[in-house]
Order: sequence, then structure tokens, then C-alpha cells
Amino acid sequence: MPQLHIPLDLLMYCTSLAAVAMMAAAAVLEAGRKRFDLFGMVVVALAAALGGGSLRDLLLDRPVFWIADQTYSIVALGAALFTFFLARVFSLPARLFLIPDALGLALFTVTGTKAALAWDAPWLVASFMGVITGVVGGILRDVLCNEEPLVFQGTLYATASWLGALVLLAMLELEINPSIAAVTGGSLVFLLRLAAIRWEISLPYFTTKE
Amino acid sequence: MPQLHIPLDLLMYCTSLAAVAMMAAAAVLEAGRKRFDLFGMVVVALAAALGGGSLRDLLLDRPVFWIADQTYSIVALGAALFTFFLARVFSLPARLFLIPDALGLALFTVTGTKAALAWDAPWLVASFMGVITGVVGGILRDVLCNEEPLVFQGTLYATASWLGALVLLAMLELEINPSIAAVTGGSLVFLLRLAAIRWEISLPYFTTKE
Amino acid sequence: MPQLHIPLDLLMYCTSLAAVAMMAAAAVLEAGRKRFDLFGMVVVALAAALGGGSLRDLLLDRPVFWIADQTYSIVALGAALFTFFLARVFSLPARLFLIPDALGLALFTVTGTKAALAWDAPWLVASFMGVITGVVGGILRDVLCNEEPLVFQGTLYATASWLGALVLLAMLELEINPSIAAVTGGSLVFLLRLAAIRWEISLPYFTTKE
Repeated sequence: MPQLHIPLDLLMYCTSLAAVAMMAAAAVLEAGRKRFDLFGMVVVALAAALGGGSLRDLLLDRPVFWIADQTYSIVALGAALFTFFLARVFSLPARLFLIPDALGLALFTVTGTKAALAWDAPWLVASFMGVITGVVGGILRDVLCNEEPLVFQGTLYATASWLGALVLLAMLELEINPSIAAVTGGSLVFLLRLAAIRWEISLPYFTTKE
Repeated sequence: MPQLHIPLDLLMYCTSLAAVAMMAAAAVLEAGRKRFDLFGMVVVALAAALGGGSLRDLLLDRPVFWIADQTYSIVALGAALFTFFLARVFSLPARLFLIPDALGLALFTVTGTKAALAWDAPWLVASFMGVITGVVGGILRDVLCNEEPLVFQGTLYATASWLGALVLLAMLELEINPSIAAVTGGSLVFLLRLAAIRWEISLPYFTTKE
Repeated sequence: MPQLHIPLDLLMYCTSLAAVAMMAAAAVLEAGRKRFDLFGMVVVALAAALGGGSLRDLLLDRPVFWIADQTYSIVALGAALFTFFLARVFSLPARLFLIPDALGLALFTVTGTKAALAWDAPWLVASFMGVITGVVGGILRDVLCNEEPLVFQGTLYATASWLGALVLLAMLELEINPSIAAVTGGSLVFLLRLAAIRWEISLPYFTTKE
């Protein structure tokens, strides 16, 4: 019954588009507090929205997703401009970009892990690909905005992404319905990340002896 | 009449080589004001000359241009050494590197856009590839020299490259002679960039409300 | 007699694994003096151990080595955790990481150069690939640790790697036994690098006239 697979593929496609839109929006909200011209802001948004998936596709030797399908760059541009005009009209709190950023992280972790699996990557590599897809766009954004990357600020970020990817992989291994597995893994990333921001949860710090 | 195509291909090949030489020269002029040893300078020149085209080729899944053809790295090395000895003999103004940088930007925008088109990329992606080819080498150079990248300094840079790429694409779409289109697009980038430096033209800055 | 090739291939495979382990260990020793959580430390170790070879494989359009074979990431993780617990128990001098770093540089230079040759790269490109494989992991590590990259600190680093790669290539060209050539090239990199650290040997600095 191949038609059963169509909704899932469509779900993954829409999830990717939503992740792209979220990361573009988060980038504009962060870049908007800096002195960028409109074009510079668009560059930051595109790098944030398309960077992680590009690195994943390069490493897996897949066709790069936004080159094969122009829809992604159009959605990224649209989300960036929409967010920009929204932020010009309404006064938004400075930390608001953390919400779309966490959503983008969660959605990209799921699509990155599943894309790697579909490409026959072994499970450990697939979990790394989920993290790379989720994390690299945000690193590019923060570096271009000259901010310390969120991923290195201590509150669970890459860790949340990795846990979500591992849970997703375990559920797929246990042959649980892929849609349920995807929603569970993604929700875990999003909720862990929000909880980490809210209560400043972090892994313990370790330093080597000197 | 295939011989009509040879001059154009040859023109593109020479344009690529000239772009590589310009970016290598600009890199040496910038790195020369820092404390680099000779080898470090060569590394910066190679990264600047070959970086943008490498990223374009990786994203398009083309063979990387300087690996397929050793001529590019030899030209980059030659231009770097020539510029270095020139700069040791003559006293050159500090901002001189902006000229070969602008030329390299213009030439790489043209060859990057055309290479993407030849690889059947859709037009929006092709224009991005022109910008990536033109801009990434300079970003690598500035990062390695620990300078704020020119592309983020406000005066038209990536914007000039993108406009040139779009004009080139529009002229090709209108079936104007490809050589004329290439020269027009490239000149536009170069002149826009020089004008932006001379009169400090920039896009308006936007910031989001807080 | 194909069985004669097995030891050499095996030697190269073990050399790659050793290089990965060394770079992971050096990264933990450097990151351990910063405020990283355990996961952040693992990310830095993986980036250092797998970064250079990944860029080489991307540029050569080979399958990325640690995706094709999960052993590499497991060895990198193992070496990182082992080094971490060692450094928690014993007090290690701060500059100790320079030793595994130099070893990793030497081993990666050899495997990077040979991998490029096996992929039919011309010799100049093969020597660049040796340098990229050896140097890029350390650059990623230093950037993630917010330290000035060793490669730009003046004492022979990329230069040592390049000289070793060129000697290796010359010996292979002269049809000297490949194992001897590999050991000689690698030892040269390692000893040059250690000597450069010990006696602060550097190439002369050049600056252009102003």
C-alpha cells in the first residue's frame, strides 16, 4: 500500500520547509538587533536556514536539498521578509528568537536523522547527521552575527538534539509507527531545549586537572 | 559551428584564471600588513583564490575546479609570489587590495553564475552560486587575517555581486550574446563596488523594534 | 602478489585510526582547560579528529571516511573519553596536547597525501590534500575553543606538514618502498614540528612595504 507512505513523505517535506522557515525567522530576529543592511540580513537568514542541511547533504554525498528544489530558498526568503516586517511593526522581546530557534532545532534533528537513515547511514552516523542538520545553521547565524554560538553556551542544545535523535532511532528500531517516532523525537528536543532555557539546565562542566 | 563556442569557453577559462590571480593578489596585499610567514601568506592566498569556487563546486556536486585542473593552483601561487615581490619593492597604499578584490569579485560572479547554469541549476540557485563564488574567498581571507569581512562592512559587496548575477541571467534569458551579457554583468559588479567604496554607498540599515 | 598489498593497506588503515585517536586526545586536553560540558568536549574532539579528512574527502568527491566506516567515530569517541578520564586522575601539563597534536598532524599528512594519490590527484594537489587533512582538524578545534589556531602562530606547522608531504611524494616518485616513504615523510613532519616548538623555529616573517 504505497499510498500510506505518501502522507509520511509529505509530512517530512512539510517538516523540512517548516524548519527552514523557523531558522530563517530566528536569524532575522537575532540579526535585526545588529547593524545589518537588508541584504546582509537575508544572507544570515539563508545561511541559518540552509547551512545545516547543506553540510549533511555534502557529507552524505546526497544532492544538496535546496539546489535540487528551489522551494526551500523561496520559503527561507519569504519567512525572513515576513518576520522582518512583523518585527518592524510589533515590538518583540529580544529573546523571542529562542522559540523559533528551538523549533527549527527540533524539526531539523528529525529530518536530518531520517534523511541519513534513508541514505543507509549506520545509526551512530545517522544520529550525528541529525545533530549536524539541527545545529550548524544556528552556529553559522551566531558567527555571522558575531555572537557566541548558542550551542556552546552551556544550556542543553546539541545534547537535546542528540537525545532526540537517539530516541527517534530507538523507536524506529522497535518498529514503532514512524510518524509517532518522529513526533516524539522532535517534541523531546523542543521541550528539553525550552526547559533548559527556562530553568538554566546544563550538563555538569568538567575540566581536566592542571 | 562549434568553433564559435571555443572562444567563449576560452574566455570563461581565462576569466576564471584572472579571477583566481586577482583574489590571490588581494590576499597577499592584505596579509602582508599582518605578521604572517611566507607559507602562511601562501595559505591565505590559496584559500582566498580557491575557496569560493570550491564551495560552489561542492554544493553543485561538480568536480572541484582546482583539483581537476592543476593550472588554477599554479596561477594562484604565481600571482601570490609576484604580488609579494612587487609589494616588497614598491611602497603600495594600504587600501590598494580593494581593487583586485573588486575585480576578483566581478569575475568570479560571472564564472560562478555561468558554471551553475551549465550544470542546469534553476536561475535563483544560479544567482546564489554567483554570489557564493564571488564572496566566499574574500570571507576566508578576512577571517584568516582576523579582519572583519568586507562583505559585512556595509558598502555594497554581496549586493553588487547579486545584482550583477541577476542582470547576467536576465540578459541570457533575453538571448543576448553571452559574451556581451558576461561583460555587462561583470562590469556592473566592478563599477558598483568601486562606486560604493568611493562614495560610501550602502543599503539602508534596518533594525527590528525592541 | 596481492597479499603484499594487504599489510600496506592495513598499515594505512591503522595509521588513520591512530591519527583520529591522537587528534581527539589533543582536543580533549585543550578543551579541558575551558568551560565545556562533557558533550561540548565530545563535539570538539569529533570535529578535530574527523574535520580534516572530511574536507579532503569532500574536495576529492570520495565517500567521507567516517561515514563509510563507523569505526572512526567510535575510535574518536573512545580516545576522547579515555583521555578525559586520564586527565581527571593525573595532573597533566598544559602544553602536553602539543605532542598528540604533532603526531596527529604527521599521521594525517601521510594518510591524506596517499588517499589523494590513490584517487589519481596530481602531485601538487595531493600535497595540498596532505596539508588539509593534517591541519583542518586542529583549526576547527582551536576555533571552537576560541584559541588562535596553532597553524597561524608562526612556529612551523603547515610548513612541516607540506615538507613531509613533498618528501613522501618525491620518495614514491623515485619508487622507494611505500612503507619506508610513509614512515620517513611522517617522521619528518613530527620531528620538524617538535623541533619548531622546542627551539621556536619559524619561517622569517615578511611584510609588504607601506
